[in-house]
Amino acid sequence: MTYLRNAWYMAAWSDELGDQPLVRTVLEMPLLLYRKQETRDVVAFLDRCPHRFAPLSLGRRIGDDFQCGYHGLRFNSEGQCVYNHFAKAIPSAAKLRTFPVIEQDHMVWVWTGTGAPASREAIPRFPFHTDPALRCVFGTTLTRADYRLISDNLMDLTHTAFLHPEFGGEHYVPKCRAWEEHGSIYADHLIASMPDIFGSSGSITETDRMRWTAPSTHLLESHVTMLDESRFSFTIPSAHVLTPESQTATHYFWSSAVDRDSPLSNEDLVAGLRRAFDVQDKPMIEAVQQRMQGHELWDLSPVMLPPDAGSVLVRRALQKLIDAEAAATA
Amino acid sequence: MTYLRNAWYMAAWSDELGDQPLVRTVLEMPLLLYRKQETRDVVAFLDRCPHRFAPLSLGRRIGDDFQCGYHGLRFNSEGQCVYNHFAKAIPSAAKLRTFPVIEQDHMVWVWTGTGAPASREAIPRFPFHTDPALRCVFGTTLTRADYRLISDNLMDLTHTAFLHPEFGGEHYVPKCRAWEEHGSIYADHLIASMPDIFGSSGSITETDRMRWTAPSTHLLESHVTMLDESRFSFTIPSAHVLTPESQTATHYFWSSAVDRDSPLSNEDLVAGLRRAFDVQDKPMIEAVQQRMQGHELWDLSPVMLPPDAGSVLVRRALQKLIDAEAAATA
Amino acid sequence: MTYLRNAWYMAAWSDELGDQPLVRTVLEMPLLLYRKQETRDVVAFLDRCPHRFAPLSLGRRIGDDFQCGYHGLRFNSEGQCVYNHFAKAIPSAAKLRTFPVIEQDHMVWVWTGTGAPASREAIPRFPFHTDPALRCVFGTTLTRADYRLISDNLMDLTHTAFLHPEFGGEHYVPKCRAWEEHGSIYADHLIASMPDIFGSSGSITETDRMRWTAPSTHLLESHVTMLDESRFSFTIPSAHVLTPESQTATHYFWSSAVDRDSPLSNEDLVAGLRRAFDVQDKPMIEAVQQRMQGHELWDLSPVMLPPDAGSVLVRRALQKLIDAEAAATA
Repeated sequence: MTYLRNAWYMAAWSDELGDQPLVRTVLEMPLLLYRKQETRDVVAFLDRCPHRFAPLSLGRRIGDDFQCGYHGLRFNSEGQCVYNHFAKAIPSAAKLRTFPVIEQDHMVWVWTGTGAPASREAIPRFPFHTDPALRCVFGTTLTRADYRLISDNLMDLTHTAFLHPEFGGEHYVPKCRAWEEHGSIYADHLIASMPDIFGSSGSITETDRMRWTAPSTHLLESHVTMLDESRFSFTIPSAHVLTPESQTATHYFWSSAVDRDSPLSNEDLVAGLRRAFDVQDKPMIEAVQQRMQGHELWDLSPVMLPPDAGSVLVRRALQKLIDAEAAATA
Repeated sequence: MTYLRNAWYMAAWSDELGDQPLVRTVLEMPLLLYRKQETRDVVAFLDRCPHRFAPLSLGRRIGDDFQCGYHGLRFNSEGQCVYNHFAKAIPSAAKLRTFPVIEQDHMVWVWTGTGAPASREAIPRFPFHTDPALRCVFGTTLTRADYRLISDNLMDLTHTAFLHPEFGGEHYVPKCRAWEEHGSIYADHLIASMPDIFGSSGSITETDRMRWTAPSTHLLESHVTMLDESRFSFTIPSAHVLTPESQTATHYFWSSAVDRDSPLSNEDLVAGLRRAFDVQDKPMIEAVQQRMQGHELWDLSPVMLPPDAGSVLVRRALQKLIDAEAAATA
Repeated sequence: MTYLRNAWYMAAWSDELGDQPLVRTVLEMPLLLYRKQETRDVVAFLDRCPHRFAPLSLGRRIGDDFQCGYHGLRFNSEGQCVYNHFAKAIPSAAKLRTFPVIEQDHMVWVWTGTGAPASREAIPRFPFHTDPALRCVFGTTLTRADYRLISDNLMDLTHTAFLHPEFGGEHYVPKCRAWEEHGSIYADHLIASMPDIFGSSGSITETDRMRWTAPSTHLLESHVTMLDESRFSFTIPSAHVLTPESQTATHYFWSSAVDRDSPLSNEDLVAGLRRAFDVQDKPMIEAVQQRMQGHELWDLSPVMLPPDAGSVLVRRALQKLIDAEAAATA
């Protein structure tokens, strides 16, 4: 098994959930996500009627309830059947599987395990998503690859030198180090000097710190300092959250924030990030998925380089959690 | 195994077989069906030359024989090789697998088993297909779903309330009962009163009796009585015959008859039925197939409601026959 | 297993390899093929970086080296890593799998086994490809079928009577004989008399000798003599070389030569051969592949005819080699 089940996974950005319900498959389970009318709380349940397995999403929303479009069972936001068009008796077993939801930092998380969910503290925080001093943009990319290949990509940013000319290109030659700390994996990328990628004719020094938290959340903080007398410095935070749709497809949720009064427009910021993730990273990662022809990474005996240290720590930590979960279930 | 092999399956409507041969896959076997020139009898054989396995349908019809388009072996309507372009000797083993055929009631049935076929009496009759007092229309829908999911749909017509507004919609609230009788499964749907769906401003009472016969034939008789002083009543018979193409695709043959002098044109009748079966039922059943993700129905622990009784009896009766066949073969 | 691994397979025509590298999958291994700038020698390596398994073909050619487009490892034409953008140390394990290459007779052959390659003498010669007295044309057809089905097609040319009217059609009624000689399988097709297919109103006698050499090379020599007082005779040589892309897809490399001063233009010659191989043979062979539904030929108990003798000898000889290889590996 390549998934951790007892975990919080990001299912959507908050603003993806408006009046229309959203169907999104997480760990091979099709979820129907929607907001309650009064409280605006997010509800997540399995998009499959327990009667004849029709998608509830093909049915009809009635207030905060959903009515199946096949034989009409109606379910409330707790997943309990509340109406049967053909009988007064409502079968007590008619219950939708619902998923615990936590919404914070503009993100909607669902608990995919079967037992009691871990507490809210298990979810990494992204305060910059809602910081009024910043402007933050958000995106979602469906990548046809094992989510661990995308994590590999994120934990080793040296690929910037070859895939992302806008982020420094060949000048992106960092010293790398990686370590584990309180259950997270950190990967630092230290660039002593490279041309300023933010527009000036000078040079910058940059430290990119990627922090992974199980099962597949990545927080990147890019610290940049101008190498002139100003020593002006700033930090760009960004989220890179991976939710497996299946063994071979992943929802990649990304964000990035700039100062509220940055001259960069949101449109240009999104366009640049889309180019990086959709046009530059995604085809490469999907090509790797193809080239691996269904094999596990280690079975192909990859040659590991120093900058791979972070991703190796992540893969080990993740596998340890998956194995522990399997052992606990057995 | 999800098929009964020793059974008569409907392969085509009689009028689908004109001068052109028809290839139709039944239980994963590609059949070539055609009419003999003189007798107009239907011939069915495996569309696969026993020599090098080319489709005979890519060859050439010569009288009632078919000549393979690859190396030219020619077979008569009994499947016996009668010509080899390169030698006078004809290999006695060169024999096409032929299938017993019965044509009656505008329907062509083939026996897919390997032993002697069951007698003609095993095939349910549909005399309304050829009743000169009636006008009957016929259609075929290829549905990308397990044939048993379509049978489930047919044995419980309460889905009419949500999928078929033209047949009563939410007013279709029947009392249901189901029972076995002489090897058939019956499912009655009794509607005490609903608005007349045939055009008047009054109300009707309707009894829809669905009768299943193994392996997958359904006869529906809809008895309608006007709830006015006229007490005018009539019966609409219809056939719903399912032939698996594969585990996940089904030929759904449907018919319906009205009085010869009904004001409803054949075109309008067919359009209405196509809407019901192609536009309303088919996408829902295919969505169920997808949502079941390859699992067997019972493995997903469906919540059963009273109107499911008919389909449950059908699934049990069918499984009993399949198990008995497997036991007899083993 | 349906492949012989320790063998020379044709990967390309010489003129398919110009300045641009070519990716071609052979025995399920994606190969990157290119010519060195100075020597014009052909290099073949696995199109998969040993680091993170990105396709080298998505990277950049630098002289005779290839640089991975993901993290920038650079490999020379021996497959050795010669540059790492992020460190002076080059990991000695970073080595591309390279494949021995022999280029002769306008053909590029690769050794797909893991041990030392067989000597050049193991590769059949096609001197007519480069004979200055002849004009030769070359083509490649990707056929979605097991390569052994195409070999079956080639070893029994009686299919000409039904698939290739331009090559004689129904008049192509040969006496066939097949035999093994020095590890090759020969299949002779002797036509005593048929109408001249080369344009005159007279008749010809033709002997088509197909010679198979392991793993899947076919040389056809068609000897034609005019049946008039001139007794004018000539020979048309052609190559039919099959390289499996996978179990169900095959690169079919074909050639044919005419006298340098033949009135037939190269364009017309190619058009005729494309019609034969792409329009006539390919759909039939692909249909056979479909009709066999994943079964092995012998499991379907084919009826064998005398002209099948050649293909049966080929299948036996090939299976013997495959079995011997499996035994040696075990």
